Amino acid sequence: MDITQFVELSIGRWRSQRSAHHLAFSHFEAVQSVIDIIPLSVDDPAVVDLCKSYNIDLSQIMSPFQMTWEGQSDWDEDAQMKGSSILVPVPDPDVPNRGKLLRDQGYAETIAAAGDYHLTEDGTFVLLTTYDRAAAEEKIWFANPNLRFRVSLIKTSAGTGVLTASFASEIRSSSSK
Amino acid sequence: MDITQFVELSIGRWRSQRSAHHLAFSHFEAVQSVIDIIPLSVDDPAVVDLCKSYNIDLSQIMSPFQMTWEGQSDWDEDAQMKGSSILVPVPDPDVPNRGKLLRDQGYAETIAAAGDYHLTEDGTFVLLTTYDRAAAEEKIWFANPNLRFRVSLIKTSAGTGVLTASFASEIRSSSSK
Repeated sequence: MDITQFVELSIGRWRSQRSAHHLAFSHFEAVQSVIDIIPLSVDDPAVVDLCKSYNIDLSQIMSPFQMTWEGQSDWDEDAQMKGSSILVPVPDPDVPNRGKLLRDQGYAETIAAAGDYHLTEDGTFVLLTTYDRAAAEEKIWFANPNLRFRVSLIKTSAGTGVLTASFASEIRSSSSK
Repeated sequence: MDITQFVELSIGRWRSQRSAHHLAFSHFEAVQSVIDIIPLSVDDPAVVDLCKSYNIDLSQIMSPFQMTWEGQSDWDEDAQMKGSSILVPVPDPDVPNRGKLLRDQGYAETIAAAGDYHLTEDGTFVLLTTYDRAAAEEKIWFANPNLRFRVSLIKTSAGTGVLTASFASEIRSSSSK
């Protein structure tokens, strides 16, 4: 599995069921959301802008895409969780299945952040992102083309302590494009 | 990481926070439990009996252990989840980091079951167990020596459909031996 195949498999609408474990106080949070992942063209203005801000040449990128989510948590039912992010893989020319993932908005902080990704031998996409005061580790893998799982850890910036661990089961929606 | 190191890291008392996603009806289940993992000696009578029932010679086994759990689910607060199981790794002499895991009681069905395990390059323990009417896939990995994660899938016996996906965050208890 390479990054192009991984992005291709991810395209579509997903119904996501996510549990977050807030480890320090053993709290369970349940989040239901709908996630739309659509491919972008390499010359999409938003992609061009993002690459420019990281000084990345467009010839280096592959399979840019947009992720949009809308969901609700049982922790605060009034708060709508909603957002959209543009993601641009920049494969390492020297190391197969490894590279940078640019994004215009991070998870743990609402600023632009670039992460380091790799794909393992068993087809798991692993993304490590370091922020100012935190680090995020994400693993995504497919059980079959219509079901994927995502484990996300939010760590202290030193990377040793895990604050939150979350697990999402994502089922391809039949109304998927 | 080999199976001996993996079992050694697992020895102790763990406070487990587990979320189960029942995928067909988007149900979230939350389970809190305490798990005790203790090493057994190779000549423990229960280990000897289990090996005999699988026609496995004691010279082939490594790091047998016992797992005991006691917990409570938010789905049925009256039902105590409680059990104990003896597990015996039988490494494949020809393939590194691969083998059988015997156990005297399975997860999905309460009968003895042997699974196939392997350890991936990034230190994840993967266990596949096939039952009469279901199959289970389990992945366990350590974030650090005091925190491990476990993803368990219960599949149809054909292995394609996933019925339940669950995720556990397991923190080493300070009262650990």
